[in-house]
Amino acid sequence: MAKSGKTLRDLFHDTLKDIYFAEKKILTTLPKMAKVARSEDLRAAFDKHHRETEGHVERLEEVFQLLEKKPQGKTCDAIVGITEEGAEIIKEYKGTPALDAGLLAAAQAVEHYEISRYGTLKAWAEKLGMTEAAELLEETLEEEKATDEALTEIAEQAVNAEADEEE
Amino acid sequence: MAKSGKTLRDLFHDTLKDIYFAEKKILTTLPKMAKVARSEDLRAAFDKHHRETEGHVERLEEVFQLLEKKPQGKTCDAIVGITEEGAEIIKEYKGTPALDAGLLAAAQAVEHYEISRYGTLKAWAEKLGMTEAAELLEETLEEEKATDEALTEIAEQAVNAEADEEE
Repeated sequence: MAKSGKTLRDLFHDTLKDIYFAEKKILTTLPKMAKVARSEDLRAAFDKHHRETEGHVERLEEVFQLLEKKPQGKTCDAIVGITEEGAEIIKEYKGTPALDAGLLAAAQAVEHYEISRYGTLKAWAEKLGMTEAAELLEETLEEEKATDEALTEIAEQAVNAEADEEE
Repeated sequence: MAKSGKTLRDLFHDTLKDIYFAEKKILTTLPKMAKVARSEDLRAAFDKHHRETEGHVERLEEVFQLLEKKPQGKTCDAIVGITEEGAEIIKEYKGTPALDAGLLAAAQAVEHYEISRYGTLKAWAEKLGMTEAAELLEETLEEEKATDEALTEIAEQAVNAEADEEE
């Protein structure tokens, strides 16, 4: 059965590297989104999430330590693709009233990717008996969910209303 | 303000093309995942979702029609990245007990991407007064959420238990 020696612990480690890369990518992307956002609320939400993301990177470094591994990223094609779509939206919608709606959609795609990854990692940490790691991952998972909800609220209120000014 | 003439309606159309491409990509990916899955439940879940995805493509074609546009895809970098990660998991974990856990994680990343996209599209359709389109998008959104929950259940039950046989 074990043709290769790869176990759930390896999968956990690989996926940790993937989300570590993703969080660092997000750290460089959020300021670009905040810079162009038209709505004050949206800009504030991006800034707040940028600060939170720094904390997520630190938590991941703690999880690497608990796994007795060096913190290390591994190109995450998913986040590269998701953030490329965001960059395209900025390019195509800059200066239009629909820009913020597009930024919100891009940010929510990022949040959902992270929610899926942290949910998986937390479940695996529990399975592997890594209680402390599971708790750290759970903390970040809750912040990602809260960010997604905050973005939904902003989308429902100001931004879409502004976007259809032009309709 | 309207430097370019791009509106929320254009953004809706662009994002529709993005998810149309994504659904078609998923249609080609699911059989590959079903083929290698070790658990019978997981294989059945992938097969079921394949049939549902065919329905999602048809619903999107109806939405294009309501928008008076030809159904057309546009490369969705996000889904390309997410499915590439899935392919990598298959390659690296084939033949190991951790494979199904990896397949589940990949499938849930896909579901979360779709949940975020359909949530956004439904909200925009409502904003644009396209009630029928919003209903179609809502139907698919609910199916994607149900699939994600079904995958979580499978993950919690059989698969992780199997994956740690080797621990």
